[in-house]
Amino acid sequence: MLPLREPGGTAVGEHIRALLVDPRHAELAPRAEMLLFAASRAQLVAEVIAPALDRGRLVVCERYVDASLAYQGAGRGLGVDVVRAVNEVATGGLRPDLTLLLDLDPETGLRRARSAARGGGPDGWDGGDRLERETQAFHTLVREGFLALARIEPQRIRVIDARRAVAEVRREITETVEGLLQERRRAGGRS
Amino acid sequence: MLPLREPGGTAVGEHIRALLVDPRHAELAPRAEMLLFAASRAQLVAEVIAPALDRGRLVVCERYVDASLAYQGAGRGLGVDVVRAVNEVATGGLRPDLTLLLDLDPETGLRRARSAARGGGPDGWDGGDRLERETQAFHTLVREGFLALARIEPQRIRVIDARRAVAEVRREITETVEGLLQERRRAGGRS
Repeated sequence: MLPLREPGGTAVGEHIRALLVDPRHAELAPRAEMLLFAASRAQLVAEVIAPALDRGRLVVCERYVDASLAYQGAGRGLGVDVVRAVNEVATGGLRPDLTLLLDLDPETGLRRARSAARGGGPDGWDGGDRLERETQAFHTLVREGFLALARIEPQRIRVIDARRAVAEVRREITETVEGLLQERRRAGGRS
Repeated sequence: MLPLREPGGTAVGEHIRALLVDPRHAELAPRAEMLLFAASRAQLVAEVIAPALDRGRLVVCERYVDASLAYQGAGRGLGVDVVRAVNEVATGGLRPDLTLLLDLDPETGLRRARSAARGGGPDGWDGGDRLERETQAFHTLVREGFLALARIEPQRIRVIDARRAVAEVRREITETVEGLLQERRRAGGRS
């Protein structure tokens, strides 16, 4: 299994990530932000994801296209269709087989993120600063964007209730992923 | 008159420029490269060009969308239509009234660029390194891409023969720009 983070995951992508998370770039235009995420993604697909899939590996990646649809399409108001079109170009149309949406109300989510950033968590989204400074109204739009995507593609996007204890969330994730892998093995596809 | 350079021209754009011109990023994927140019352009339009036009200023900018169509669309083979669609999003559809294409065969062009980089020129394209390392075949594709755009929009894109002496090239540029400005003043438009 190859776990990847976004933005980042390549030398070029990590430079882009540094730009995107820097709170000094408060003036970053929504379209520029969206295109920077797409650029990092294009590099990750070309340099890492596509070659790994060609070797038959299983790729697990944070965020990916759905996050841009929710954050920039819904949250920033650029429109989901516009962001989707740009990301089709960025990824060459490569889509995940399964997306796990860990759903949480913004208030609880931000409280957890801040707690993790104070040193509590193993992988506090270290670049969250610029985005975490967004209003709760923004995060509510993003959440609604994600949930709307899940309603359109319920088979691919599985909503997981993240209010529960870590062990319960982990169990549901494991079951969901193993379910898909078994299905693929039965179908004789890539596993 | 507000002269701007691309990529760059804003704090975010200068960071992107540094990424794009770094010869260590030889592995930069063509789609990522194209999206980074588009991101820098989106920021420049939002932060500088659109506000300047709103104040009635005259904006002069290096490269802009046509350069991406020629370099990434034709040169890298991504296709002009794909690059145009992404740049429509980046710029919100903002197009120049006039584009001056200083045309030169790649051999002469690269010889001049190298000579300028050795300290001869006042504005050697300091970021040319990664792109200047491209083959002459690449630069030939780019030139053909530019000339094809000029054939499609001969009124907007004026081809200027850059083999001539600086004074002659300058005179033709001045005449072309002043011709457009006079036309606009007569029409009562923005000048």
